[in-house]
Amino acid sequence: MDKIKLSAFRWVPPFAQGLVRDLRVRWALEEAGLPYEERLITPQDQKTDAYRKLQPFGQVPAVETEGLALFESGALVMHIAEQSEALMPVDPRARARVKTWMFAALNTVEPPIMMLNVIDMQPGGVAEEAAKLRESVAEMIGGRLDSLAGFLGERAHLVEDRFTAADLLMTTVLRILRTTNLVSTRPTLEAYRSRGEERPAFRRALAAQMTTFAANAPRQNEDGGAAPQARAR
Amino acid sequence: MDKIKLSAFRWVPPFAQGLVRDLRVRWALEEAGLPYEERLITPQDQKTDAYRKLQPFGQVPAVETEGLALFESGALVMHIAEQSEALMPVDPRARARVKTWMFAALNTVEPPIMMLNVIDMQPGGVAEEAAKLRESVAEMIGGRLDSLAGFLGERAHLVEDRFTAADLLMTTVLRILRTTNLVSTRPTLEAYRSRGEERPAFRRALAAQMTTFAANAPRQNEDGGAAPQARAR
Repeated sequence: MDKIKLSAFRWVPPFAQGLVRDLRVRWALEEAGLPYEERLITPQDQKTDAYRKLQPFGQVPAVETEGLALFESGALVMHIAEQSEALMPVDPRARARVKTWMFAALNTVEPPIMMLNVIDMQPGGVAEEAAKLRESVAEMIGGRLDSLAGFLGERAHLVEDRFTAADLLMTTVLRILRTTNLVSTRPTLEAYRSRGEERPAFRRALAAQMTTFAANAPRQNEDGGAAPQARAR
Repeated sequence: MDKIKLSAFRWVPPFAQGLVRDLRVRWALEEAGLPYEERLITPQDQKTDAYRKLQPFGQVPAVETEGLALFESGALVMHIAEQSEALMPVDPRARARVKTWMFAALNTVEPPIMMLNVIDMQPGGVAEEAAKLRESVAEMIGGRLDSLAGFLGERAHLVEDRFTAADLLMTTVLRILRTTNLVSTRPTLEAYRSRGEERPAFRRALAAQMTTFAANAPRQNEDGGAAPQARAR
């Protein structure tokens, strides 16, 4: 493979640092042992035709590899996993199960979590009337987390008693809840998430994202208002 | 392949009929020319250990095929597409693009749409205070739809000028907005969605889902209150 070019933000506000979705791709590349270079962008770049040609929604991450433009963190992790046994077993039945759980992470567990994020990020907080809505979303998340914890039980991983791309995605989805107690009050999930975060490849990926942000932090009194929000995918 | 067993609901209220996510799998199977049989379930079945063993979140659809239990509509469509040229070209670069757009449909376009659904399904409607939240979600959807329409332009399909599993998923995501004007006010997307819905395989899939619901509709005065809600994936 050609050296992969990964698009990522130059900087985001602290609440999003360590969560931006290029982290998923960095992690997968680290697990697979594939080198990459960053293509750092700003919120202004997201709107340009040049960037939209690479990523039609203007989001991060996108990848250029072998003249091919790919995007969507889930698709990128799958693309890498399809080429690396470190992320997906060779057995076709196990592969089908890994892909099933990759979609479960991104299409069953993540959407209500992002809903909660949107509610909690309303400027000025949510009015009392909307608090009922927040409660019902938190309940929906709780139900899905209980199902996930029930499935895991004594298992350390989602598929085949080994780390796969499914665990990679699920761990990054659970991390989004770090400002709530929805994961921390569920010991099975707390342990599962920690196990993912303790992997050396995860630590290298997180360090890479955080190093970039630290290097590009706006200086005191500088306007950080144009920071990207809710645009990562 | 062994004859596929597809789990689907016996009945859902009219607002969800034609949208439940087993439709995606029915459609993919129709495009691929693969026969299947239904395994019809009720909301009570969703909570049983037996069903949870097949689908850990208790959702529809799930599939049993060759002794393998798979779930998540996205994973199921991908599983079928990987075995059928009718849904995915053979060329590896085109396949990577199809998968990219499959994730875009389910992880960029669908989540805010489901958020709007949750808000609009609040019992008694949303209070004025929460209306601001709804507005910002609708705006988020609008932005993503504009990006999608911008990408499509004169294109009839997302990848390679032919129908693929990416169009299948994106069409079913756009259909969820049928009670809003978010798609109907965007001619490019309205035409794109109609093109999908006009495919004979889609019509057969929709007919199959609707026929089941018609056959199992609760009689007048019978309690329909236990109908499944917001549980399909």
